[in-house]
This record gives sequence, C-alpha cells and structure tokens, in this order.
Amino acid sequence: MLKERLRCEVLKNRVMEPEQAAQFFKKGMTIGTSGFTPAGYPKAVPLALAKRGKKGEKLDLTIITGASVGEELDGELVKTGIMKRRYPYQTNKAVRDAINQGKIEYEDMHLSHTPQWVKYGFFGKIDIALVEAVAIREDGGIIPSTSVGNSNVFVEMADKVIVEINTSQPLALEGVHDIYSPKNPPNREPIPITKPHQRIGTNYIPCNPKKIVAVVFTDIPDKTREVAPIDENAKKMASHLIEFLKKEVELKRLPKNLLPLQSGVGSVANAVLAGLIESKFEDLMIYSEVIQDAALDLIDAGKAKFASGTSFTISPSRLKNFYDNFDKYKDKVLLRPQEISNNPEIIRRLGIIAMNTAIEVDLYGNVNSSNIMGSRMMNGIGGSGDFTRNAYLSIFTTVSVAKNRKISSIVPMVSHHDHTEHDVDVIVTEQGVADLRGLSPKERAKTIIENCTHPDYKEPLLEYYHDVMKNCIYKHTPHSLEKALSWHKRFLETGTMKK
Amino acid sequence: MLKERLRCEVLKNRVMEPEQAAQFFKKGMTIGTSGFTPAGYPKAVPLALAKRGKKGEKLDLTIITGASVGEELDGELVKTGIMKRRYPYQTNKAVRDAINQGKIEYEDMHLSHTPQWVKYGFFGKIDIALVEAVAIREDGGIIPSTSVGNSNVFVEMADKVIVEINTSQPLALEGVHDIYSPKNPPNREPIPITKPHQRIGTNYIPCNPKKIVAVVFTDIPDKTREVAPIDENAKKMASHLIEFLKKEVELKRLPKNLLPLQSGVGSVANAVLAGLIESKFEDLMIYSEVIQDAALDLIDAGKAKFASGTSFTISPSRLKNFYDNFDKYKDKVLLRPQEISNNPEIIRRLGIIAMNTAIEVDLYGNVNSSNIMGSRMMNGIGGSGDFTRNAYLSIFTTVSVAKNRKISSIVPMVSHHDHTEHDVDVIVTEQGVADLRGLSPKERAKTIIENCTHPDYKEPLLEYYHDVMKNCIYKHTPHSLEKALSWHKRFLETGTMKK
Ligand SMILES: CC(C)(COP(=O)(O)OP(=O)(O)OC[C@H]1O[C@@H](n2cnc3c(N)ncnc32)[C@H](O)[C@@H]1OP(=O)(O)O)[C@@H](O)C(=O)NCCC(=O)NCCS
Ligand SMILES: CC(C)(COP(=O)(O)OP(=O)(O)OC[C@H]1O[C@@H](n2cnc3c(N)ncnc32)[C@H](O)[C@@H]1OP(=O)(O)O)[C@@H](O)C(=O)NCCC(=O)NCCS
Repeated sequence: MLKERLRCEVLKNRVMEPEQAAQFFKKGMTIGTSGFTPAGYPKAVPLALAKRGKKGEKLDLTIITGASVGEELDGELVKTGIMKRRYPYQTNKAVRDAINQGKIEYEDMHLSHTPQWVKYGFFGKIDIALVEAVAIREDGGIIPSTSVGNSNVFVEMADKVIVEINTSQPLALEGVHDIYSPKNPPNREPIPITKPHQRIGTNYIPCNPKKIVAVVFTDIPDKTREVAPIDENAKKMASHLIEFLKKEVELKRLPKNLLPLQSGVGSVANAVLAGLIESKFEDLMIYSEVIQDAALDLIDAGKAKFASGTSFTISPSRLKNFYDNFDKYKDKVLLRPQEISNNPEIIRRLGIIAMNTAIEVDLYGNVNSSNIMGSRMMNGIGGSGDFTRNAYLSIFTTVSVAKNRKISSIVPMVSHHDHTEHDVDVIVTEQGVADLRGLSPKERAKTIIENCTHPDYKEPLLEYYHDVMKNCIYKHTPHSLEKALSWHKRFLETGTMKK
Repeated sequence: MLKERLRCEVLKNRVMEPEQAAQFFKKGMTIGTSGFTPAGYPKAVPLALAKRGKKGEKLDLTIITGASVGEELDGELVKTGIMKRRYPYQTNKAVRDAINQGKIEYEDMHLSHTPQWVKYGFFGKIDIALVEAVAIREDGGIIPSTSVGNSNVFVEMADKVIVEINTSQPLALEGVHDIYSPKNPPNREPIPITKPHQRIGTNYIPCNPKKIVAVVFTDIPDKTREVAPIDENAKKMASHLIEFLKKEVELKRLPKNLLPLQSGVGSVANAVLAGLIESKFEDLMIYSEVIQDAALDLIDAGKAKFASGTSFTISPSRLKNFYDNFDKYKDKVLLRPQEISNNPEIIRRLGIIAMNTAIEVDLYGNVNSSNIMGSRMMNGIGGSGDFTRNAYLSIFTTVSVAKNRKISSIVPMVSHHDHTEHDVDVIVTEQGVADLRGLSPKERAKTIIENCTHPDYKEPLLEYYHDVMKNCIYKHTPHSLEKALSWHKRFLETGTMKK
C-alpha cells in the first residue's frame, strides 16, 4: 500500500507522524491548505497542531484554503487559538462564531481571486503548503484527493510542502484531476477551454520532491454533510426555474440542452439541480465549483453528460456508492483548480447559467449572500460572485420567508450587498419568478413584489414602494433613508419583521 | 468627396436627407446607435427625429447606445418626448433629469453586458441600427468614426441599418479600428488578445449593403467636453497613486513598466493619468474604454507606448491638434468594440490596473459610483464594474469631501452599492491611500478612516465605528441599522452631513 501511495523514493525517509510534521509550523506563518467545501482538506496535521494549541502555544497562523474545510482543520484550530486570520470562505460553526465575536480576522473573498493573489504575492510569502493527496508520484507530483481548490497554487508558491496521504480516499481518484496554472500578467495566455469536459493540464500537481519536507499518512475520512431532504418549497422553486428555462429555449435564447450549469452550495441549490432530473432536458453539462449529490443523480439518470468542478461534495450516505462505482463516473467528471473552475474567462466564454442562493433580495434586485441583518457573517460570498458576474444568465433562488415567516427574504433594501442590481438577472422563490432583464429599477420592484414575495409581506412592501415613489424627490431607485433598513431593525428589536 | 466617403455603388441611390431617413422609425421600435462618451454618435437623423417629436408625434423609442452620447441624440430625443427607454449609460443633463423625475425608464448596465444581451436576444429585436461612419466601403463595410462601442453588434443584429457619414470626422481614422465579434455560447472561442496593441479583426464593420436602407451625410462635429483644469486635490491624488504604484514595483508585485492601465471617465480620472507624465514610469500601456486627452499627452511625452480603447474622447480644444497630427498617433492607438475593450476575459488575462472614480466609499470599502444620496442617478456604472471586477488591481479615487465640505465622501454605509467590498483593493483620496488587500472589514475601516478621510469627518467616523464595535452584537461588518444612513439623511434634511 505504501508503495502504491508513495512512489517517490527520496520521500520515504520523510514519512513522519503528524505531531512531528506539526513542528514545522512557527508563530505568525501563513499556511495554504487543500480543501474545498468539506472535501479533500488535511486532517491529521491540523489535529496535531491543535494539540500544540491545547498546551497553550500561541501560533497566530494565517490559514488560506480553497473554500470551506472540515472540523479537524477549521474547528480545531480556531477552538485552540491557533488560527488568527482566515481566507477566503468558511462554513464552520466555531470559525463563524469567532468571526462574529471579532476574535479572528476574516476576509471574505471571491474564490477566483485567492489563487491569483497568492501568485501575485498579495498575501506575502506562503510559508507552508499543507495538502491532502491520494498518492505521490515518482517525480514528486502530488495526486489530490476529493478537491483541488488552491492546492496546486500553494504547492507552486510555498517554501515548504507537507503532504497528507489519506488512505480513506481511493486511489481510483488518480486521473480525475486536470491541473493547469496560468502564468501571471503580462505573460498570461488564453486558457484553452471551450467545452466543460476539455482537459488542458496534468493529472497531478507538479512538485519538486525537495520542497516536500514531510509526508504523513492518515485515514480520517472527509466530514461532508448530509443534504437536507427536498421539501415543498425547494420543489416549487425547482419547478419555477425549469419552467423559466423551458420558455427561454422556446424563445431561442437558450439551446435545447441549455448551457453549462453552475449551482451553488447548500440545500436549496442541490434541490434545484435535483429538480432537473424530472425535466425533459437532456445532454446537460455542468461547469461548477462543487459536484454535489444531485450532479451524480443527473448523470445516473442519463440527463447530464459531464460535470466539471473543483471538489466532490458528496453526502456521507452517498459517498460509498460513489467510490464503489467510480469507474462509471470516471470519464464523466473532472476536478480543476479553482483558478480555472471559477475563472471569469471560462465562465463568460462557456456562457454559464449560474444558479446561486440568496439570503435576501431587495426591491431593486440587489442580493445579500453572506451577512444576516447586515453584520452577522454566515459563510461568505464564495464563488457566487465569480459566476454571477460573468454568467450568461445569473439566477438567484431563495425561499421568500425565513424563521417561521418572521423574516421576509424580500426587503426594501438588503442589509448587506454582495451582488448588485447590475449582476442579477432572475429571482426565483417558491412564489414565482421575477425576470429582471431589461427592466428599470421601478419595474424590477413591481415584478419582484408581484411574483416573488410571500403574501404576508406583499402589502407592506407595496406600501414602502408607494411611499418612496411619492415622497422621494429622486425616482431612479427611490428610497427612504429612514425606512430602508427599518424592517431589519424591527426584527432585531422585536424578533419579527412584521409590525 | 462623396466618392471617397461612399464607395459602394448600390448605396448611391439610398443617400437621402435626414428627414427622409427619420421616416423609417416607427412607434415602439428598439434602436441601437453608435456613440461612446460623446464621440462618434449619430447627429443628423436624431435631430430630424426630434422634429417629429416637436410636432407632437409619440414614438416611444427604446434607445440603446455604446455609452453616453451628445445633446443631438440624448438631449433632443428626451426633450421632444421621442425616447421612452434608455440603455446602458448616459451623462446628458436632460436625460438624467428625466430619469430622476421618473419620466423615462433607464437600466444602468455593465457596458460589457449590453453587446452580448443584444446578441443573445435579451432586448428582443433591434429594429434599426443607426451608426456614424467616416466612410462606407465598396462591399458595404462601415468604417466607424471616433468610437466603436456597440456599432458592430447593432449592425450585425438589426433588420435595417442607417449610416450617417460625418464629413467633420477625418478619413484618416480609417485603419484605426479593429472589429471582432465573438460567437455566442456554446460556440465561443478564446479571444486571441494577449497584448493591448494586438489586432484580431477587420478595420471596418462587415455589412451586407442590402441591409443599409439609408445613407445620410452630415458635418456636425462631436460635442465633447473640455476637461476640468487639474486642481490641487487632483494633483495630490495622482501623487499618492504614483507613490503607491512605485512601492508595488519595489515589492515586485508589479513589473517596472506597470501593467496595462484603465482609467475611468471624468476630470479626476483624467488628472490621475496626467500625473503619470511627471512620473519615472516608462513604456506604459493603456487598455481602457475611453482615450482621453491625458492618454495622448502620455504618448506625446514618450511615456505611453500604446492606447487601446473603444472611443476617442478628446476635448474640443485638443481635437484639431489630434486630427492634424493623426499620422503620429495612428500606430499607437486602436479602437475596439466595447464587447472586447470591456471583456472580462481580456481584462483578467492582461492584468489591468483599473482606476475609477467613486462618488462615495464606506468604512468597509463598498463603493457608490452612480446614485447620489441613494436615489439620484448621476451617470451610471458604465464600464467601471467590468474593469474593477476582473482587474489585477482595482483602485478607486475620490476627493474626500464634496459640496464645500458639506458632504463626506467617506461614509458609514454607502447609500447605493455599485462595487462591493470584495471588488475594491485600494482607495485614494487627496488625504492618502488605503490599501485594503488582505484586510478584514474592521481593519479596512481603521485604514480608511486613518488614511483617506477629511479631518472634518475623522472624529464622527471614528465615533460611529467605536459605537458599532461596542453595540452591534455581530462584529464582522458591525453596523447600526439606525445610524448607518443617518449622515445622508441629515444632509437631505439640513444641507450638510455635519451635526
Ligand atoms: C445563502 C446560503 C447561506 C443559503 O444556504 P442554504 O443551506 O441553501 O439555505 P437555508 O435556507 O437552509 O438557509 C441557511 C440559514 O440562513 C437562514 N436564512 C435564510 N434566509 C434568511 C434571511 N433572509 N434572514 C435571516 N436568516 C435567513 C435560514 O433560516 C438558515 O438558518 P439556520 O442555519 O439557523 O437554520 C448559502 O447558499 C451560502 O452560503 N451562499 C453564499 C456562498 C455561495 O453562494 N456559494 C456558491 C458557490 S461556493
Ligand atoms: C463618479 C463620477 C460621477 C465622478 O465624476 P468626476 O467628474 O470625476 O467627479 P467630480 O468630483 O467632478 O464630481 C461630479 C459631481 O458629483 C458630485 N459629488 C462628488 N462626490 C459626491 C458625494 N459624495 N455626494 C454627493 N455628490 C458628490 C460633485 O460635487 C459633482 O457635482 P456637480 O456636477 O454638481 O458639480 C464619474 O466618474 C462617473 O460617472 N463614474 C461612473 C462611471 C465610470 O466609472 N465609468 C468609468 C468607465 S466608463
């Protein structure tokens, strides 16, 4: 087994225990790790680092990942005080709490920005790249596991590389990755992808074995999450969305097999993709970040031909089946670095249909994806901006109410802006679809109130709109600066947005 | 002259008076016109259309342009009630007033979205393309004048084409354009530009002469504006910016001759570019939308090697000199369609340094470029989002106060969001520079208050920040929903943001 997994002779004497590898980490270092949505992140070395933290050591590490990672890394390092700073995305409860309590510094970044910032030197030096792999090749090349994320970039730019070979991740994954790293400007060339399934790189991360200072073996599995069961609201949103897409095909604004689909993280996004299984669409292509359960289901149903992503985020109950049948999927899936999966060049060229989830949307079509009531960080913007901004069609889904109808997800003004009116084409709630393309702000407001708002909040929203249309001197995006955020304020004070 | 300008035999009997050409326009039509910042827009036919309006005809036209156009088109059509709907950008006083009074519908769009929306059919059918040219070739090919904008796309997609040959625009412009139109997805290929000066297309807009229903001759010159004299504040901003760029070169985060520069519209943007003339930088490249006076000055000074844009927006006093010496500039300038000048693929690949002007900026780095006090449309987002979002470095400049210090351009929360915290790297005011890269929101707030805020507003801003840090339960982007927009409210009520 060791022979199959560690094929590079010179590295054999650099195999060590996690505790030993953890000694490479010094105070104030900047660490780049693998991992994208709890998949393919390092586990054993972070757990060993956490032990140092428990003993009271202060390391103040800066942790840069692909996207969210699991409890062994995010949870443990934050609880033991080892992590001081975090980029670019997280979904971990302990990290989220630390951010919202102001205990750690978090910059919520577009996921396509992170790799180029590393390469441009905007983060300073990357001291250690800590990446999970299924194997290391003879030449030192690293074969990633269930995600690529920024691993290739960290390996390229770091002084030292530590590899965790995870034997719970099947060797069958070898061959599923496609690693390509564009040069920095002014020497960048076109990225030669014109179809989602195209391969342009190597199936391993090139690495000079000299840089690899430690190899650690582990068998701790990815801690992915179960996807929420698909409820009535999700079904309604999926069905509205599919009706909308059908009409676009009839109007000849989309090809019969649509265009490559991107679908965000979370239960709503998964449900919407799942809805396509029942649809008449065929030969679908997926060009996304995460390959979730629903993408596999679409492949199984013969509906999707190919899925390109940067991580497999498969639920625990589905994972065994996925691995056992990996041969069936192998030529239908592909993992790329997030510098490529989220690249504006490719997204614009392929003409992606981007489907992401909003926390709240306002009358004029602005979207909040990250901060509840303006200040409480949920996860982050993730790749939603990369896709939304450069898509062929950019769609946001959200249930029209939250917290037992005490919150309307359609508000006069969003309390935090992640995607502006300029970037949002279509809003889908369980109530219906608002197609905002070509509409002035006032027209958008009417469409959103009419088609997307929950009955409980239709009257109050109309009241706000009529009030500002009457009383605001300027009628482009009329607002009352007094009342625009008053719904959120009321919720914070009384526990409901209702009067 | 007519022979040189109109070289296509079959079109000679379609030369007509503007009034006759104006008869092609029917109620409710969608018209695509040339013009990008008051340059290269049609003049004679719009003036004739305005006459129909003055007679009381209601045409309710939808007007889509490249960007802003001159009084003969925007001003006249809105004043005579001919225009009902307007995309994607404007700077005309009469249009702005009509928008703010709610008399016409305006959708403020990213300039790179407009051409593809036309090609995707999102605007419906384009009934007439009305474009200014310096000449028409034997084969019907149209040679644009001082801008390309969306002219090529309108000509490609419209049922009927009307060409205004403007004899005030020199024939010497022939050869300066580079026309290329990417196919729609799923058939789009990489756009093969890797350097700002590269030519990839034809120097004319291909057009089947059968589509050209009218040719009108005119000699009305472009109504460009004088640039404001460079004042003390502009000089300070330019010098801060240059210091910042120098440091980036020292840190090896930028090459010695920088990377291609984009610079927005307006007097501040022009002043900042002009500041580079005094700097030590050499061999600069410009890849922008507008080629303003300062770009020519940089070429004259031997500082800039090349300027690629989609329009020449040269001030009236500079224009004659530019035309008279056009031979000197001809191989140093190039005009592309805005689908190419503003394309995310090229902007990301070339690694553009984007420098745009903000109306206001908030503590966390969000930028308002378009709506004063949240509701009053100024111009629009224009191309600032196209560049900002995909740039190597995205910089915003703004004077720290406006209206005789009654307004602070640094506020607790911007009253309208065009560019979110995720897209803004650096803020420059006459006070100094805030480098926001890698900073958490709280760190950004401190840097912006410290380095960019006017002394009159430093205390009040610090007070807001300390207040929300203390009283807001959530400390990621702490805000007071009560006070966040209170500065704007105070200004609207009392005429000043000061207490
Ligand atoms: C927006 C996002 C949080 C939604 O997640 P989801 O699991 O699909 O949606 P849910 O409906 O379960 O909502 C998640 C939580 O937000 C709450 N919520 C939803 N809308 C809300 C609103 N308007 N106000 C307050 N809370 C709201 C829900 O009640 C739920 O709370 P809980 O965790 O306490 O139960 C998630 O999609 C996200 O983080 N998106 C941003 C990043 C992104 O889009 N990435 C895509 C590519 S990486
Ligand atoms: C933002 C923008 C309006 C600034 O224009 P400018 O000519 O450089 O800047 P000025 O300082 O002269 O300001 C223009 C006006 O806004 C006012 N203003 C500036 N800051 C303000 C603020 N914070 N609040 C209210 N008004 C403000 C000025 O007082 C001035 O008003 P006036 O016309 O009544 O005199 C302009 O750059 C723009 O429209 N940008 C958006 C589009 C864009 O960036 N395009 C780039 C590529 S196309």
